[in-house]
Amino acid sequence: MATMASLFLKTPGPSQSLPKTHKTRFVLPQNLPLSWRSKYRAGAAAVRIRCGLIDPDGGKLVELVVEEPQRDLKRRQALSLPQIKLSKIDIQWVHVLSEGWASPLKGFMRESEFLQTLHFNSLRLGDGSVVNMSVPIVLAIDDSNKNNIGESSSVALVDDKDNPIAILNDVEIYKHNKEERTARTWGTTAPGLPYAEQAITHAGNWLIGGDLEVIEPIKYHDGLDRFRLSPAELRDEFTRRNADAVFAFQLRNPVHNGHALLMTDTRRRLLEMGYKNPVLLLHPLGGYTKADDVPLEWRMKQHEMVLEDGVLDPETTVVSIFPSPMHYAGPTEVQWHAKARINAGANFYIVGRDPAGMGHPLEKRDLYDADHGKKVLSMAPGLERLNILPFKVAAYDKTQNGMAFFDPSRPQDFLFISGTKMRTLAKNKESPPDGFMCPGGWKVLVDYYDNLTPSENGRVPEPVPV
Amino acid sequence: MATMASLFLKTPGPSQSLPKTHKTRFVLPQNLPLSWRSKYRAGAAAVRIRCGLIDPDGGKLVELVVEEPQRDLKRRQALSLPQIKLSKIDIQWVHVLSEGWASPLKGFMRESEFLQTLHFNSLRLGDGSVVNMSVPIVLAIDDSNKNNIGESSSVALVDDKDNPIAILNDVEIYKHNKEERTARTWGTTAPGLPYAEQAITHAGNWLIGGDLEVIEPIKYHDGLDRFRLSPAELRDEFTRRNADAVFAFQLRNPVHNGHALLMTDTRRRLLEMGYKNPVLLLHPLGGYTKADDVPLEWRMKQHEMVLEDGVLDPETTVVSIFPSPMHYAGPTEVQWHAKARINAGANFYIVGRDPAGMGHPLEKRDLYDADHGKKVLSMAPGLERLNILPFKVAAYDKTQNGMAFFDPSRPQDFLFISGTKMRTLAKNKESPPDGFMCPGGWKVLVDYYDNLTPSENGRVPEPVPV
Repeated sequence: MATMASLFLKTPGPSQSLPKTHKTRFVLPQNLPLSWRSKYRAGAAAVRIRCGLIDPDGGKLVELVVEEPQRDLKRRQALSLPQIKLSKIDIQWVHVLSEGWASPLKGFMRESEFLQTLHFNSLRLGDGSVVNMSVPIVLAIDDSNKNNIGESSSVALVDDKDNPIAILNDVEIYKHNKEERTARTWGTTAPGLPYAEQAITHAGNWLIGGDLEVIEPIKYHDGLDRFRLSPAELRDEFTRRNADAVFAFQLRNPVHNGHALLMTDTRRRLLEMGYKNPVLLLHPLGGYTKADDVPLEWRMKQHEMVLEDGVLDPETTVVSIFPSPMHYAGPTEVQWHAKARINAGANFYIVGRDPAGMGHPLEKRDLYDADHGKKVLSMAPGLERLNILPFKVAAYDKTQNGMAFFDPSRPQDFLFISGTKMRTLAKNKESPPDGFMCPGGWKVLVDYYDNLTPSENGRVPEPVPV
Repeated sequence: MATMASLFLKTPGPSQSLPKTHKTRFVLPQNLPLSWRSKYRAGAAAVRIRCGLIDPDGGKLVELVVEEPQRDLKRRQALSLPQIKLSKIDIQWVHVLSEGWASPLKGFMRESEFLQTLHFNSLRLGDGSVVNMSVPIVLAIDDSNKNNIGESSSVALVDDKDNPIAILNDVEIYKHNKEERTARTWGTTAPGLPYAEQAITHAGNWLIGGDLEVIEPIKYHDGLDRFRLSPAELRDEFTRRNADAVFAFQLRNPVHNGHALLMTDTRRRLLEMGYKNPVLLLHPLGGYTKADDVPLEWRMKQHEMVLEDGVLDPETTVVSIFPSPMHYAGPTEVQWHAKARINAGANFYIVGRDPAGMGHPLEKRDLYDADHGKKVLSMAPGLERLNILPFKVAAYDKTQNGMAFFDPSRPQDFLFISGTKMRTLAKNKESPPDGFMCPGGWKVLVDYYDNLTPSENGRVPEPVPV
């Protein structure tokens, strides 16, 4: 994957000579599309275009990994504390917290943060300001853990081999009302929500919050760690590239040419707005995903091909892995996806149709209205500083043999290829229409389904979740 | 009920000569209880004690009743419009909206307001400021209504006899996702939530929002209309009384001496804080309540007796009816109860254990954690200006033969009399311990249960809901 690293992080020469620290204010261009303008109109604290990266939530990026010289001390301290064993998803959240994606959160939520998240999707800080926080980042424990902790104010968090991962200090234990948590996060309590089945239904009846000290950076040793840039590292990279705008694209699926068209077009629009060097953060989600999503490893191979094939410009693209687990909580979760990218320096966020959505677990319909994600995102407290870029619908244009923005005046010329359709084609080793995806990228998908061992009845099984 | 009116609205002489318009700022006293202090510490816009009434949300009280000279015109206009028939609960919401309890809402919610309410319990206004709005105030219509409305931008809202009540202008029709609405409002989708069964489950699959023009003030002709003071009328009354603090007490149950003790004690504390003339708004909820709550008419009789018996001081108490229906949505609804009282001029709000709570419809537990109501209320966006007064627990002190604040050092001396216990005693014509409730008030309760016609099997039936 050497090519991948060099491609993903290839740094252009400083073709722009914008000042890095001095914050220039641009006048808002008159030709903004309507949806952008309403954003600018929205509040007293109107968004301004400026050089330099957007500030992290709370003003300062939270970093919770203990300094090198203190790590042995912390490891020894952890041995003397009551222990809580972390699941893989718990460790992903420790990772998220440790690098400040959830800034200004300093650890797993205490009850006051949990309640504010459930009821308001936001947290009020000590100075009265508000930051967005829409999904609970909590750690569940059971009765025996709770008894074991007793009156201890600190606990050690360990992995499945009892290696200490972190220490949680000034802990607070409170009730884990799973029904209420699920209802307020997903807007349904129907059985079959992937994250709930994986991390809530069978979890303990208590939550434990506190301040984290993470003993060393979280690594997965899966060959992809070097692509897991922290918000601080991403900020350094954007600064090194003299980015004056960073637009983030969250994804958990293979990239097709429709996505590429959208990202290229966004850059064009940002240049038209007056930005000199907009940089794309192509940011696949790397934590827990449901069984029928394409696993991270294969998605990363596919993204590599897309860059190699020149569909996206490596000069102005940073590909990195976002370590968060996936909730599939639609309008609630898209806020988290956007907020975390502010902390990594993004001031523009591309939002598509039904972001973080899925089918209803019981009913034959989508769980969320396809437009609610972008509507909720555009109104969300604490995200006023972020410029929301609604996704234009791209489809396969049969007259041009390629992906293009859908033109409602000639619907007969367009073909919509859903994720399900795409997966079915790849599973059956069929080819999509020319121009749907670059050949190298498509081959990765076909290889992935080929690599899944067929089950006895000859059908390709669903992959096993993380 | 002449005595009732004179008692409830008896006006003391202007014993205080505080300026009504000039806003003096008091220094925060050092001896505030801890829970109050944290409130003062909370934000950049710290709460300040000042004379004059608190401003309504959005700065201006919304009033949606058409002026007298235009009413005939509006009635005729209504006849030419597509019609929607209102339920009793719908009319209660029209009442609520018409008088500005939900200021700055100008009518039933459009989708952007509905989504902000569900996700954020608050609305962002055009100037970027935020007001609290935690329960959806929406109007459901079915497919045939929707077809009938067609492209019309206005519709007439009529009662069950087709009398026009209001006109809804610039309407927007959007999907009524009942499951999501219920999950996000109540934190459960369990069947058996009283408001949901009454107003959601069988309602139409669409919601219609728009700006209201209410043709004349909503009246119920039940002998209690004169106690239904609007926020504007309450503000006039508080101003007339030279109130420099207004503390609101929401209730949907008979008043016992524990409540009275709490209200009297609150006034004492406010005087200690430096207020010269704190006035109590004793504010029973008058809209829909569940079948086993005591109906409004009987509660009002009971409240009258409590004032006649001198348990509360009529000089510093205003009793009025709050026209809202009841959701029983716990921490979500208590915000609505508080916010509406800001609009009526209250700057202090008393919150008890498990406000607006009830038992879980399916499980043997309370639906909400008893402390979540006051916690959520104290953190709610848009309520920063309101001073939250947590309820101290009162119980029957056997050593004093009366209600007193519970003293944890001698628990054996106290008797807790729940609402269920109280109702059972009254149903069986038994007496509560001396000093639990004034005799006149208790007699009203016994009379109420006596008046319910026993069903054939000799058991007292539950009353029928509004």
